[in-house]
Amino acid sequence: MNKGELLYEGKGKKLFHTEDKELFIAEFKDDLTAFNAQKKSQESGKGALNNEISTIIFEYLMKNGVATHFVKNIDATNMLVKAVKIIPIEVVVRNVATGSLTKRLGIKDGTVLKKPLVEFYYKEDALNDPIINDEHCIMMDLVDSEDDIDFLKKEGRRVNELLIPFFAEKNLRLIDFKLEFGKTVDGEIVLADEISPDSCRFWDVDSGEKLDKDRFRQDMGGIKVAYEEVRNRILGDK
Amino acid sequence: MNKGELLYEGKGKKLFHTEDKELFIAEFKDDLTAFNAQKKSQESGKGALNNEISTIIFEYLMKNGVATHFVKNIDATNMLVKAVKIIPIEVVVRNVATGSLTKRLGIKDGTVLKKPLVEFYYKEDALNDPIINDEHCIMMDLVDSEDDIDFLKKEGRRVNELLIPFFAEKNLRLIDFKLEFGKTVDGEIVLADEISPDSCRFWDVDSGEKLDKDRFRQDMGGIKVAYEEVRNRILGDK
Repeated sequence: MNKGELLYEGKGKKLFHTEDKELFIAEFKDDLTAFNAQKKSQESGKGALNNEISTIIFEYLMKNGVATHFVKNIDATNMLVKAVKIIPIEVVVRNVATGSLTKRLGIKDGTVLKKPLVEFYYKEDALNDPIINDEHCIMMDLVDSEDDIDFLKKEGRRVNELLIPFFAEKNLRLIDFKLEFGKTVDGEIVLADEISPDSCRFWDVDSGEKLDKDRFRQDMGGIKVAYEEVRNRILGDK
Repeated sequence: MNKGELLYEGKGKKLFHTEDKELFIAEFKDDLTAFNAQKKSQESGKGALNNEISTIIFEYLMKNGVATHFVKNIDATNMLVKAVKIIPIEVVVRNVATGSLTKRLGIKDGTVLKKPLVEFYYKEDALNDPIINDEHCIMMDLVDSEDDIDFLKKEGRRVNELLIPFFAEKNLRLIDFKLEFGKTVDGEIVLADEISPDSCRFWDVDSGEKLDKDRFRQDMGGIKVAYEEVRNRILGDK
């Protein structure tokens, strides 16, 4: 499977056509961005780590019945995925309050939420990915129906329920994460994008140490070491 | 009924205890504020106009089965209302996109929405009244149950359906409005606060002229004349 025309370049990945209309190649980049790309950097090897971590997590989720765009790993930085049309809604699932939530709603950092919180953000860089409610999704035709909205919420919660114990076994506390979904040519909604320390927050269970992109956002350093730590814990004796 | 201790001073009204525990007196102020009180002014007679307009609208809504906190008009600037505990959610209903919605979601000013849009904002000045979704309302205990959320949305839509023809008869186009609700001592949720050119947007049907607080927000002048025009049209030959 060879890379064809570049379809889309995002902040963390490039997406290429292939000779098969139903398949794309996702190339994971070393670029690091935060705060809607107002802060930018590069971290050599980050793309490969996220590709590796995402691969393991997609495989785990698919074994547990979650449909994803993942087809197979190609090489260090490239993943073969189903050709989907991305739904422009970032589905954020939170178990613990941190980051923008604490500032927006005045909730103390580290507060454990009574139940996981699902939020939708309109994926639109020019508008700084504003938070939206269910009615905005319908109003702006971001989804085809209210059933799609219900699916996104339920699937977000299900992924959370699967990932919490998965990471807990690795002594990682899953604080929150962002999911993106896409529609296949057959109209099926599948989990897409990536699941990595770029899109999730992980805190070490014992020390509370941050092992995710917050190290970049907060100028803490040790970014690659943290991503490698997540990779190593997930890989275990694999 | 005499004014007792000041219970609360808001941006547009003061609320006083009375000798009856189940009743408050709302005093409508001449203060004008916008953008979370970053912009402030005064307009002599504005409080009286809003009191008069709100009285008429509360009476109209109550005749049509909407429960409100309104009890009776006392004098030019004072209204007797039921003692309610305000639910800290601003329920915004929009028929036409304007103001913050257009900026936040990149929608062209004046776009007629396919169906009325209901949004919730967390009523908290210190946080600049952030937009929230249904799950935030539960998470922060802003309401007692999901049924309360459904009620706020349905009641917001019902008030909109009643107000659109009411204002259309007066050649006023109801663009959007903000409602607040409160719980009575009996636990009933009733419409509270005010319904006035401070809390609604009205455009003249023929000319499109703005007859509401946007005249203040946008430094258009003629604020009192506009509020008087709304009052006069609503009063009709009353």
